[in-house]
Amino acid sequence: MDTRTVGCLGGGQLGRMMVYAAHRLGVRMCVLDPLGESSPAGQVSELSIKGSFQDAEKIRELASKCDILTLEVEHVNAQALEELHLKGVPVQPLPFVVKLIQDKYDQKVHLQKHRIPLPDFLKVDSEAELHEIGEKFGYPMMLKSRFGAYDGKGNAVVSDAASIPAAWEKLGGKAGKKLYVEKWAPFKMELAVMVARGVDETMNVTMRTYPVVHTVQRDSVCFTCLTPPVGVTQKEQELAQKIATDAIKSFGDARGIFGVEMFLLDDGSVLLNEIAPRPHNTGHYTMEACGVDQFEQHLRAVLGLPLGDCHLRVGGAMMVNILGQGSTPELTAQTMAPLRCALRVPDAGIHWYGKDGCVKGRKMGHITVTGFTPASALEQIRPVLKAVDGEGNSSSIEVPHKSSPSVGIIMGSDSDLPTMKDAAVVLDDFGIPYEISIVSAHRTPEYMYEYATTAADRGINVIIAGAGGAAHLPGMVAALTPLPVIGVPVKSSALSGNDSLLSIVQMPKGIPVATVAIGNAANAGLLAVRILGAANPGMRQKMAQFMANEATTVEKKRRKLEQVGWQAYLADSK
Amino acid sequence: MDTRTVGCLGGGQLGRMMVYAAHRLGVRMCVLDPLGESSPAGQVSELSIKGSFQDAEKIRELASKCDILTLEVEHVNAQALEELHLKGVPVQPLPFVVKLIQDKYDQKVHLQKHRIPLPDFLKVDSEAELHEIGEKFGYPMMLKSRFGAYDGKGNAVVSDAASIPAAWEKLGGKAGKKLYVEKWAPFKMELAVMVARGVDETMNVTMRTYPVVHTVQRDSVCFTCLTPPVGVTQKEQELAQKIATDAIKSFGDARGIFGVEMFLLDDGSVLLNEIAPRPHNTGHYTMEACGVDQFEQHLRAVLGLPLGDCHLRVGGAMMVNILGQGSTPELTAQTMAPLRCALRVPDAGIHWYGKDGCVKGRKMGHITVTGFTPASALEQIRPVLKAVDGEGNSSSIEVPHKSSPSVGIIMGSDSDLPTMKDAAVVLDDFGIPYEISIVSAHRTPEYMYEYATTAADRGINVIIAGAGGAAHLPGMVAALTPLPVIGVPVKSSALSGNDSLLSIVQMPKGIPVATVAIGNAANAGLLAVRILGAANPGMRQKMAQFMANEATTVEKKRRKLEQVGWQAYLADSK
Repeated sequence: MDTRTVGCLGGGQLGRMMVYAAHRLGVRMCVLDPLGESSPAGQVSELSIKGSFQDAEKIRELASKCDILTLEVEHVNAQALEELHLKGVPVQPLPFVVKLIQDKYDQKVHLQKHRIPLPDFLKVDSEAELHEIGEKFGYPMMLKSRFGAYDGKGNAVVSDAASIPAAWEKLGGKAGKKLYVEKWAPFKMELAVMVARGVDETMNVTMRTYPVVHTVQRDSVCFTCLTPPVGVTQKEQELAQKIATDAIKSFGDARGIFGVEMFLLDDGSVLLNEIAPRPHNTGHYTMEACGVDQFEQHLRAVLGLPLGDCHLRVGGAMMVNILGQGSTPELTAQTMAPLRCALRVPDAGIHWYGKDGCVKGRKMGHITVTGFTPASALEQIRPVLKAVDGEGNSSSIEVPHKSSPSVGIIMGSDSDLPTMKDAAVVLDDFGIPYEISIVSAHRTPEYMYEYATTAADRGINVIIAGAGGAAHLPGMVAALTPLPVIGVPVKSSALSGNDSLLSIVQMPKGIPVATVAIGNAANAGLLAVRILGAANPGMRQKMAQFMANEATTVEKKRRKLEQVGWQAYLADSK
Repeated sequence: MDTRTVGCLGGGQLGRMMVYAAHRLGVRMCVLDPLGESSPAGQVSELSIKGSFQDAEKIRELASKCDILTLEVEHVNAQALEELHLKGVPVQPLPFVVKLIQDKYDQKVHLQKHRIPLPDFLKVDSEAELHEIGEKFGYPMMLKSRFGAYDGKGNAVVSDAASIPAAWEKLGGKAGKKLYVEKWAPFKMELAVMVARGVDETMNVTMRTYPVVHTVQRDSVCFTCLTPPVGVTQKEQELAQKIATDAIKSFGDARGIFGVEMFLLDDGSVLLNEIAPRPHNTGHYTMEACGVDQFEQHLRAVLGLPLGDCHLRVGGAMMVNILGQGSTPELTAQTMAPLRCALRVPDAGIHWYGKDGCVKGRKMGHITVTGFTPASALEQIRPVLKAVDGEGNSSSIEVPHKSSPSVGIIMGSDSDLPTMKDAAVVLDDFGIPYEISIVSAHRTPEYMYEYATTAADRGINVIIAGAGGAAHLPGMVAALTPLPVIGVPVKSSALSGNDSLLSIVQMPKGIPVATVAIGNAANAGLLAVRILGAANPGMRQKMAQFMANEATTVEKKRRKLEQVGWQAYLADSK
């Protein structure tokens, strides 16, 4: 469809997945990689060059075969790219951005100038200076290499003054390596956002931002990502997207996709950690979860094609990286175990990178599981996570993300529980995860506010609220959440639930409560199932089956009455 | 992950997409195709052989390089496959099935023996015989080549006795080509189902069936596919899946994926049309819409890996084929137009096959658009369909499938319309497609039954039902559909809607109606939006925005009251 050839510096797994996207668009690719045509990307690209992406000569050779240059790794010869760019060769992202990102300290100075919130940081040239900074920043603090760091390599935690010499030594300070220090960010979670920057037909900048993911590191390497991130409020997600977008805006006319890693602090503020000027591990989930994945989006941005839509096509997605295990280049059973396991997991996308030989800790592949909700994705990926750590450790494995039930059952008082339990029984029957709690509009108004305003962010899809008498709970909760709220009027002693019913059903225009019959919490549970099945054929089928079973039950009673007559029937039911 | 090499006879687009799937699983592939390494599949596979898949020598060469043989086209040298298989080379699907399918007449005889419902068919050896059959079957009838037919080539419609000589000539009857006749199947729609047949660890057969798609042909070539098929009942879909599954069961130990094309007749019966023993055009939608696509499923089946889940991960999907246009081998703007257009369509998966040169009518690529519902997929793909036919014809293009609204608004009487219109206004504001109708439980009970039982099959996600007085409509509709039903008690003159409210809300256990306030159809519309947003973050965001706007409106009123005082405020509102 597009007759251009894209040259890519680097031929690893990111390049490989970029080649797949190029094929779909009809774009040709040539990769430059030390492994040439046996690199993961070289195996599938139309052309490849064997050589270092640091080698100016090879980069010029690549440029001679291509219409535009891009990259899948930032540790390239940016000088060579700059020279080519000055001679009129299109390079995206622009070489100055690649240079800026190569020097983590300069990157931070640039972002600070553009008012992007960051952890405090300082250049450090000697051990003595590091002590001074320790006094200022407090401990722990992070000592980091300015150049060439990735996957936690080139970072050291300085836990106290006594550990300064070891950290200084470890990162090569003595050998003259350029280092800098970052104040510790006391984050409660790490977030990441992919941002695409392209141009429209009139060469005006266009930007698209993917959803926020919660990322979990293990030994400083990305282990899992979950989206939407459970336990992160809508406001926090919007803040993270805004900071990521603002940061990429600071890169002028640079185009492509950018991975932005951030810290979410306890107070809800967000600090930028670092930026990758290319597809990123935290964006792999887009292959299954979004209309256009990060690789195609990168190519669209670089080539000046229209950017694609970034929203989630599914309710939730979780990715886990598969790292090499064992000490031999052979693929051990342990490395393969999560992949073999994933073959049995519904909605698991398996991605093997085709790397020659296995190295411990090397990214060999990844698996993304999608679900109707983030909770269902989490639930389904559990056996794969177990397999990552091997059967022996299976008891210790914990899903590294908060899970969330689909339905919240709440009631104004524990006296409503004998009624409300019927909703729980129905949800158990349908296998739908729920939480159940006491939330009183009148006695715990602050908690009610908190419960209702955070429910959607916690992954809840439907709320069932029961209350009696003045029965304000369902309506107040509905006023505080965009979720559907089902109201159960609990039978009161004074007015037999008439009061509860009218309090719940007679809501003003603007805020609906889905009201069921007095005391009929079972129907509230069934309505929740119907709501979850509104756009879910599988769930709808389960409801149809339930209704067929109910019909059979009545059918049996009918036959019995017709056979034994009313006297025997009544005598029997006594 | 799997160290085996799969050999594939044929290297077209189906082979190419099979190679992508193989890569993800870590499986190597070698393709045999006349175009060798420049064939669509050869461009991306690890190995390729240039040669005909009819050439026994080349097939043996392929076998020598591979652990198992399969195919992406059935017009291969089945004899050569059979000989290899007898010598112990694994071949899947089994050669006897390939042979059976190559002869369309024998295929039908085999399926008839296994009691698969088919249009009547007969062998025909002379023009005279064809006249006799015409007397028996009636006209029109289908004259078909037994061998080598595809994409409508090798088929001729015999519209009456007078057209027999021309049809006989066209299909080569005179030249001794083997033909047979099929009685015309007066179908209302064409359906297709992909069926996978594999084995478990103990080599027991396992089968998985994908959802039913509605396929539309143009000039006898697959043009579009929609799933779930709008206007096909659940029962009809289950019947189509059962017939497809039964047909594939008849193939003994053969493994792989099979495309089964069927006719749906007016009376709801289903006849099998034909079977392809490989991935199929009608299964392309699985790439975006299902957890495991047809290509990976085929490899899993052939290799004896566990079969993957077949259910839809999205609410709906529609595929359109992009055929070569124009009379030159150059890619014309018209051929490219739908692809360029798709770059701007949300959730459009673009697949270009990388074929060298363009031939009119040749499959050059395809586009699949997914949506929250089949209706939204249909709506989104509309500009792509327009682009297929060129801008000049844009007024004439019609989406070749029934569309379906998301919400059904129904009421017992037109006297309810002044109330119920408020629900429509809300849905218009939120951009949600709806249908609106009069359905009376008491005056049109049959129509109510039909409306309620077909709503889900027609693509409706939520029903809003308004009624007054005895107000049976919402409850009766809820009893006949697994969809969520919202009840609006319309204010009655006798009891001010108290009667309507109690009739609607006091449903027995088992069948819930989500009841809103008396006369408050706007809240019913808003509740429908919340229900559609229960698992759809985008829709939920729209609801949150609506609630924020409502708050702003009240805020303004509050400020005005505080500024002007109550006297002026009331005077102003008069």
